[in-house]
Amino acid sequence: MSVCRPKGFVASGVHCGVKSGDALDLALVATADGKPVPAAAVFTSNRAAAAPVQVSRANLAATGGHAAAVVLNSGNANAATGAPGRAAAEQMAAAVAAGLGCAATEVLVCSTGLIGIPLPVDAVLAGVDPLLAARKGTEAAGRLAASAILTTDTRPKETLVGTGLVTVGGMAKGAAMLAPDLTVGGAHARQATMLAVLTTDATATPEELQAALVEAVGATFNTLVVDGCTSTNDTVIVLASGKMARPPAGALAEAMTLACADLAEQMADDAEGATRLATVRVWGARTVDDARRAARKVAESQLVQCSLHGGDPYWGRIVSELGSSGAEVDPDRVTVAYGGVVVCEGGVAAAHDEARVRAHVEGRTVDISAGLGVGDAEATFLMTSLSPAYIAENERTS
Amino acid sequence: MSVCRPKGFVASGVHCGVKSGDALDLALVATADGKPVPAAAVFTSNRAAAAPVQVSRANLAATGGHAAAVVLNSGNANAATGAPGRAAAEQMAAAVAAGLGCAATEVLVCSTGLIGIPLPVDAVLAGVDPLLAARKGTEAAGRLAASAILTTDTRPKETLVGTGLVTVGGMAKGAAMLAPDLTVGGAHARQATMLAVLTTDATATPEELQAALVEAVGATFNTLVVDGCTSTNDTVIVLASGKMARPPAGALAEAMTLACADLAEQMADDAEGATRLATVRVWGARTVDDARRAARKVAESQLVQCSLHGGDPYWGRIVSELGSSGAEVDPDRVTVAYGGVVVCEGGVAAAHDEARVRAHVEGRTVDISAGLGVGDAEATFLMTSLSPAYIAENERTS
Repeated sequence: MSVCRPKGFVASGVHCGVKSGDALDLALVATADGKPVPAAAVFTSNRAAAAPVQVSRANLAATGGHAAAVVLNSGNANAATGAPGRAAAEQMAAAVAAGLGCAATEVLVCSTGLIGIPLPVDAVLAGVDPLLAARKGTEAAGRLAASAILTTDTRPKETLVGTGLVTVGGMAKGAAMLAPDLTVGGAHARQATMLAVLTTDATATPEELQAALVEAVGATFNTLVVDGCTSTNDTVIVLASGKMARPPAGALAEAMTLACADLAEQMADDAEGATRLATVRVWGARTVDDARRAARKVAESQLVQCSLHGGDPYWGRIVSELGSSGAEVDPDRVTVAYGGVVVCEGGVAAAHDEARVRAHVEGRTVDISAGLGVGDAEATFLMTSLSPAYIAENERTS
Repeated sequence: MSVCRPKGFVASGVHCGVKSGDALDLALVATADGKPVPAAAVFTSNRAAAAPVQVSRANLAATGGHAAAVVLNSGNANAATGAPGRAAAEQMAAAVAAGLGCAATEVLVCSTGLIGIPLPVDAVLAGVDPLLAARKGTEAAGRLAASAILTTDTRPKETLVGTGLVTVGGMAKGAAMLAPDLTVGGAHARQATMLAVLTTDATATPEELQAALVEAVGATFNTLVVDGCTSTNDTVIVLASGKMARPPAGALAEAMTLACADLAEQMADDAEGATRLATVRVWGARTVDDARRAARKVAESQLVQCSLHGGDPYWGRIVSELGSSGAEVDPDRVTVAYGGVVVCEGGVAAAHDEARVRAHVEGRTVDISAGLGVGDAEATFLMTSLSPAYIAENERTS
């Protein structure tokens, strides 16, 4: 586990004072030698993108897809902070770059926390020297970095994928404001205040990395819905140290997809107030876009989220959401199943083993599948239940 | 108040046995003489539209916009019930028509309740004779009809608007699965499981009625969001008895808009678990569509709904939703105000009287306004808070 397992990376996590007490709130992932390597990223499509998103996007463009480090703070999103916020994000990059001996544009920046509050940039800058001094290529250092980016998450999220052909490490955070819409150019991927940093020791060009990242994010984070709110700060970054050989075609995207899927599942499992998770598989759609649209509508439905929380197999709400999703659907050919047990067929109630369905929907993870009856395309989303704990977490922030 | 106040209408409400105990569950609004009059309607755009929606839509098309009555049941949506469901809705219309002496196509049908359960049509049909026998043109009869269409609503919703030029009465229900998307041809209007029947004694053609209804619904029900779930059954119907003179241009739409606005506010005030309401006014948008898109995104946001419940003036979430709404917005020119007190200006925090804002957001109704900084268009939506009571109401239905 950890971003330090692929060869050529170091990490660290310290407390700088954005959060109160002594909570870790500043993290670093960097190349071991402080030199830039090929990098790629996807960012939120929110038009009110936070300062660090603006700065990281500009830096990556300026270097043509290279970076030596990512610096991340938690406890403050540095969003809706105007020109002073952008200056603060640039100062963060510059301070790390000075310590590493690289260009400021070769450092990417991420922030997560409350929106609209000026970043206490002096505290952050004072933390950069200790952060750099603490950097190591150990699992423990990786764990500290993964811990320092958390907000309402209850535990760090790390992953390590070794396919034999390529190794990918990763860390992530995200527990609410989670329904990202990550984008790069025309490519699109959705999730929510999530940050993730991936590392690989594979050899790859920035373009290859970018293509693999878009593929990986599209199949994983972009199919995760907690609350349907797309954050100002969502960012996924990958750095490739080139310490190992160039993998065969497709192997990098495959490993990155596995890593992102693992992190997405950890986020869902630790989502605010989530008492149950569900996979929503929509099949029989006219197009993949339609399948995704329908699955997302079900996943974002407050009523389906409530049913999931209650362990209630009320499939009528699923049919209703399919119908209002905008996807083409034949109401007289709709099928719904829980845990493989068909409860609705031909658009109407189907006789079924009610005890078996009840037992399934009362479990921790529920499998929902829904057929639209109009084609061959399918898509699967990951959703979480809506419980009073989510409201308690979010009703008051000040 | 009541659908019976405009001249020429009668109403009734009885218990037929769809609901348990002796709860009212079958309602009628009809012309006093049982003869058809000009009528218009908007229906849900949900592709899994319930049987009564399919039947009413067909009937209205068959008659060229005429109806003698509307029969409505609560306790069962008759949705996802297939061909038997459609037959049941047609039988309801035919039974009422037989009693009134009109054609079956001159009766419109509405249902509301759980989805996916066969309608106990024998009970409904047995209730039609008592329903017809009980019809009267009194306020009390109108109240019984308004009571018989309720599901989780805690009180009946009625309205009466007399502008001097035209009189419109109305009744409605709706407390959740409430974010309708009512449509007729190309015209569109959104809300959720809401049913409403309006009556007027004005003289109007079906085309005039339809145009006025689309205008009224677009400005009222279509700006109401409780939970973002668009029902299979949403229907708004208006009947015009023609007992009074033809009103001047615009007067009918104006009165119908006032009536629908009153009913929409009553629905928001009685929405499941709603501890607070908010008006969300978005201004400074490039287009009205953009203003509506942004206001709807704020209104549908689970996080903003949680802040509203907590009485927490966390404007950062509003900025984030504006940014992810798809509407054009200048992040450096965004303004947010609560109760007229600006808390965010130029996209960043603005110094303000915090005690005054706190007192405002802790009230029953909160005024949120947000400027996008890119134009002159505006729109206002009505939203409700998300509280644990909403989850308790919806976590278990069986």
